[in-house]
Amino acid sequence: MSLSIGVIGTGMIGREHIRRLTTVLSGARVTAVSDVDDELAGRVAAAIGARVLPGTKLITDPSVDAVLICSWGGTHAEYVLAAIAAGKPVFCEKPLATTSAAGLRILEAESAYGRRLVQVGYMRRYDVAYRALKRELDRGTIGAPLMMHCAHRNAHVPSFYTPDDMIADTAVHEIDMVRWMFGTEIEAVRVLRPRPSSHAGELPDPLLLILELANGVLADVEISVNAQYGYDIRGEILGESGTAALGELSPVAVRRTGRLTTPIPADWRERFLAAYDVELREWVDTVRAGGVVTGPDAWDGYAATTVSAAAVLALRTGKRVEVAMADRPRLYR
Amino acid sequence: MSLSIGVIGTGMIGREHIRRLTTVLSGARVTAVSDVDDELAGRVAAAIGARVLPGTKLITDPSVDAVLICSWGGTHAEYVLAAIAAGKPVFCEKPLATTSAAGLRILEAESAYGRRLVQVGYMRRYDVAYRALKRELDRGTIGAPLMMHCAHRNAHVPSFYTPDDMIADTAVHEIDMVRWMFGTEIEAVRVLRPRPSSHAGELPDPLLLILELANGVLADVEISVNAQYGYDIRGEILGESGTAALGELSPVAVRRTGRLTTPIPADWRERFLAAYDVELREWVDTVRAGGVVTGPDAWDGYAATTVSAAAVLALRTGKRVEVAMADRPRLYR
Amino acid sequence: MSLSIGVIGTGMIGREHIRRLTTVLSGARVTAVSDVDDELAGRVAAAIGARVLPGTKLITDPSVDAVLICSWGGTHAEYVLAAIAAGKPVFCEKPLATTSAAGLRILEAESAYGRRLVQVGYMRRYDVAYRALKRELDRGTIGAPLMMHCAHRNAHVPSFYTPDDMIADTAVHEIDMVRWMFGTEIEAVRVLRPRPSSHAGELPDPLLLILELANGVLADVEISVNAQYGYDIRGEILGESGTAALGELSPVAVRRTGRLTTPIPADWRERFLAAYDVELREWVDTVRAGGVVTGPDAWDGYAATTVSAAAVLALRTGKRVEVAMADRPRLYR
Amino acid sequence: MSLSIGVIGTGMIGREHIRRLTTVLSGARVTAVSDVDDELAGRVAAAIGARVLPGTKLITDPSVDAVLICSWGGTHAEYVLAAIAAGKPVFCEKPLATTSAAGLRILEAESAYGRRLVQVGYMRRYDVAYRALKRELDRGTIGAPLMMHCAHRNAHVPSFYTPDDMIADTAVHEIDMVRWMFGTEIEAVRVLRPRPSSHAGELPDPLLLILELANGVLADVEISVNAQYGYDIRGEILGESGTAALGELSPVAVRRTGRLTTPIPADWRERFLAAYDVELREWVDTVRAGGVVTGPDAWDGYAATTVSAAAVLALRTGKRVEVAMADRPRLYR
Repeated sequence: MSLSIGVIGTGMIGREHIRRLTTVLSGARVTAVSDVDDELAGRVAAAIGARVLPGTKLITDPSVDAVLICSWGGTHAEYVLAAIAAGKPVFCEKPLATTSAAGLRILEAESAYGRRLVQVGYMRRYDVAYRALKRELDRGTIGAPLMMHCAHRNAHVPSFYTPDDMIADTAVHEIDMVRWMFGTEIEAVRVLRPRPSSHAGELPDPLLLILELANGVLADVEISVNAQYGYDIRGEILGESGTAALGELSPVAVRRTGRLTTPIPADWRERFLAAYDVELREWVDTVRAGGVVTGPDAWDGYAATTVSAAAVLALRTGKRVEVAMADRPRLYR
Repeated sequence: MSLSIGVIGTGMIGREHIRRLTTVLSGARVTAVSDVDDELAGRVAAAIGARVLPGTKLITDPSVDAVLICSWGGTHAEYVLAAIAAGKPVFCEKPLATTSAAGLRILEAESAYGRRLVQVGYMRRYDVAYRALKRELDRGTIGAPLMMHCAHRNAHVPSFYTPDDMIADTAVHEIDMVRWMFGTEIEAVRVLRPRPSSHAGELPDPLLLILELANGVLADVEISVNAQYGYDIRGEILGESGTAALGELSPVAVRRTGRLTTPIPADWRERFLAAYDVELREWVDTVRAGGVVTGPDAWDGYAATTVSAAAVLALRTGKRVEVAMADRPRLYR
Repeated sequence: MSLSIGVIGTGMIGREHIRRLTTVLSGARVTAVSDVDDELAGRVAAAIGARVLPGTKLITDPSVDAVLICSWGGTHAEYVLAAIAAGKPVFCEKPLATTSAAGLRILEAESAYGRRLVQVGYMRRYDVAYRALKRELDRGTIGAPLMMHCAHRNAHVPSFYTPDDMIADTAVHEIDMVRWMFGTEIEAVRVLRPRPSSHAGELPDPLLLILELANGVLADVEISVNAQYGYDIRGEILGESGTAALGELSPVAVRRTGRLTTPIPADWRERFLAAYDVELREWVDTVRAGGVVTGPDAWDGYAATTVSAAAVLALRTGKRVEVAMADRPRLYR
Repeated sequence: MSLSIGVIGTGMIGREHIRRLTTVLSGARVTAVSDVDDELAGRVAAAIGARVLPGTKLITDPSVDAVLICSWGGTHAEYVLAAIAAGKPVFCEKPLATTSAAGLRILEAESAYGRRLVQVGYMRRYDVAYRALKRELDRGTIGAPLMMHCAHRNAHVPSFYTPDDMIADTAVHEIDMVRWMFGTEIEAVRVLRPRPSSHAGELPDPLLLILELANGVLADVEISVNAQYGYDIRGEILGESGTAALGELSPVAVRRTGRLTTPIPADWRERFLAAYDVELREWVDTVRAGGVVTGPDAWDGYAATTVSAAAVLALRTGKRVEVAMADRPRLYR
């Protein structure tokens, strides 16, 4: 039997996941959708033969086996809590919650429920390049890790993008990634401000984050959200006996007018399209099989939110900020 | 409604396609299978809840919407003809036929039927790198094409591999690819014999094919089937104002013991996995939508077989062999 | 007439320069040498037909047109001052001086003399890759610079290497390079300590330097002196509209056992051999032509030493240290 | 004592070598020059304080220790013979002779003299990339060689360039290179004609040469003399267990407007400047030391000319042409 999924939020990312579940992946179908914009929800539902339901109704509706949350970030925690209350697997796009406190409530609810139901949408863990990088690290190819150098560059961001978004929406991907890559927590954060780009309006763009991990690894992360030239994600780990870096995934190389050129992705869709496919395929397969989700869980979501909050404070104050994290509940050990 | 597919041939490639249709792609399910090995067919069928039917029965069975042929090459033509007779869309793994004459019969049968039902499994047309290469060519980035340099290297082949297989099973991929890339036919073939590898047993391995295209483009193709080091597919087009080449798709780069290293795929599965997914997804989507298949058609299959036969003759005689091709029937223009 | 050069210091780098002047470059010959080890100096002199003189005598000797200082760093300033007093062009291996105060005395002496006689041996300015990088920056290819990411990795250092050496001997190359690259001064320095490598003994290795430039550019510099795998120098500049990075200079690419590999230099000699040749050739040509040296001058040497001192303090204290630099004398504007 | 060199031919390459001997390399000076254009010879001589002498006088003049021949190719053999008669070391730019017969006379004259005096200017043997490639081959990194794929692309050639020049002036570099790389002779040649470039006027451009070596290795060589986009030299050897290729020597990598770009050399000067320096330095050092030249000798020059003649015939006739080579005289074994 295919998995019946209810999707909350039919904005860009929601519609993208609906397309994926409907026309790309096997084993699932979208049977209900919800959006603050009823009319939009209606149109999306009609195209795929789904029903429109208010978010909380959708979660409890018996026809919905599992929930996919793609609404505005501020609403995530509430919906996740409702899904836990309904005992249903829930895939929540990042962030799990916009505050540590809300994240903590989810940890408590899920712990009380006694089984992990929540997965958070940090798709880099499913990217072929990050997976290959982690495989080399875990194999010991480069020895114990000492540092990681990262860059996260967007060609452009919308005019409403705020300095906090540069952390909580952009850098949060690296925050989750380094926790996963090294299997350890981030203990302190600094945010440095280089000369701002004239293309960045009022934004302090670029930024340089310095993340201190519990195992001593130091990660520096360049965040550029108006890099103009393309979407560019880099990562190199320095180990005791070598380095490993994300590779160049260039389908074609052109020699012309005195230059050898290879294309750079235009945006995150192009760069991470396959990762989103793998992420959702693995989630659907696991849920259908009745298993416990293997991707980023509620603890990962809570940790990312908590580190983000520390980084936002570091950005505002210019100081090194230590991350104040709750004890890890037994369910997530 | 999902597409009901009958699969003839449950060997390696058949089972791989069944896995793809069952657990990867949406929109199709395998409802019947067939194999010369009844017991194998029975096990495969049981695992996915399909029926076992003899090949020709499978094709005409009303529960089968479309047919996928993955049996031994010598049987392909007969099954394709049966599918045309049944008026059913048929995806035939390469080759379409093992002789030009058999291919011609398919062209005639399909022409008589009046609509294209046949697609042949030349998956390179769906590969991200080949598609990017063709896009650059078609955009005119490098000007009119003059030459193409190709290499097709397998790490190893089984001991039963014959010299003819080096053409008809290996080089045939480049034969189809250059026809598609340049939108023209191959008119003559030479096959040169470099010093044979000591890893190749009795095989004349490597070979160098020289393909002369109707538009004057010359393509040289190295065929190595015991290259030892990995599976490596290369292609570079020389145009009037530049060159375009298949890119390096390296997920990770490691620096260690005095060397920067990137991985090379082990085999064709690793290299073309995604291309097979795209190929079958596009076919399923097209067939479900009632459309005419857009991939390599029966004419392409006939042409590949006919050029292969010329290349086999060129290999045996050491001479330049002109390709004797039938006129292209109206259906394929 | 060829230029008669006196070389002070016949250790490794001194002998290397003597070899260069004697057998590689045209236009100069070494006519006198000096070393604290008389016997070593004697052997070196005998091999090339030069005289042995005490350092200060060598400088004033009428047969010596120009002086090359390759002795122990602590002696540099004294010899440079003597050369200025003698009115002779002097090429001083880095550092110009081991303290800011000594550097300042050189600036004053040279200013009093009224003409620049001093060049300091920061050879990266002569490297083909750094020059290409600077050319792209200066052409505006990537827009105004915002950040620079650097890594400086040595495979190994001798057991007597100190934490201060990691700054004053290793990172000082990047300190000079960023000043030259961006044509501006470094105003503040931080030094962060990642997890130390188990190959590094007592050294805090690697380090991460954060350099704040007067124009707002922020440069992060990884310093690894026991990186094991080779000598690796990296640099990437983020500009407002793109990035430019040092290229890969790989003479050969090997595919073998599942890997594409390119060689990494073993040490700085291999990486910068050609840069040393160019550096000394340009210096000899300029001095022979009676011109004013165009390479790193005494002010550059003073600045590198002063920033190094600030970085050493930053390493010891863990704090951000502002660089206290003298006003730039008129001679160096 | 520095080596006194007489240079015959003060055209572009002659002046370039004079510059090299005068301002780049140590150990030699140009004391006499000769040219069919007396006025040009006079100007060149005046700039460096050399005398002007007629070619044959220059060779016998007692003040000339060694001879460098950079005149028009048709005159080379005569001057080389004169140098042998005078018992003087002679460096002859390619070709050694324009006919096999003339080359043979040189072999006989040098054999009669009893000692090798002649070196021919095939500079690729001194290129860092070709040397690294040969080192990998000789180390056995890739096993016994089976094939080599080459491309030799010029952005443009002058309007007077002839089809024969495409062989004798351009492809001759690969002809010498494969002989040197594999330590064996070329036995037969084919020349194929792809679609000609519209930028090539009347020239059959590009060409594809197929070289058959005595050890069974097959080399295919693309010759493009109006490739427009730059000067591009490629080479990849297929061995029994891997491949080795000329690396990418890119000093800088720029990311801009959706593309990662690295520069391609504009012409042979840019690509092989360092190789010319090394070539002449090693020759000067060897001659000064009284040694026998180690670079391409008269036999290599004869062989290159003889294979070129076969390739020209192959180009004109469209046939496979076997190379008719004299027995190798004892002096060159």
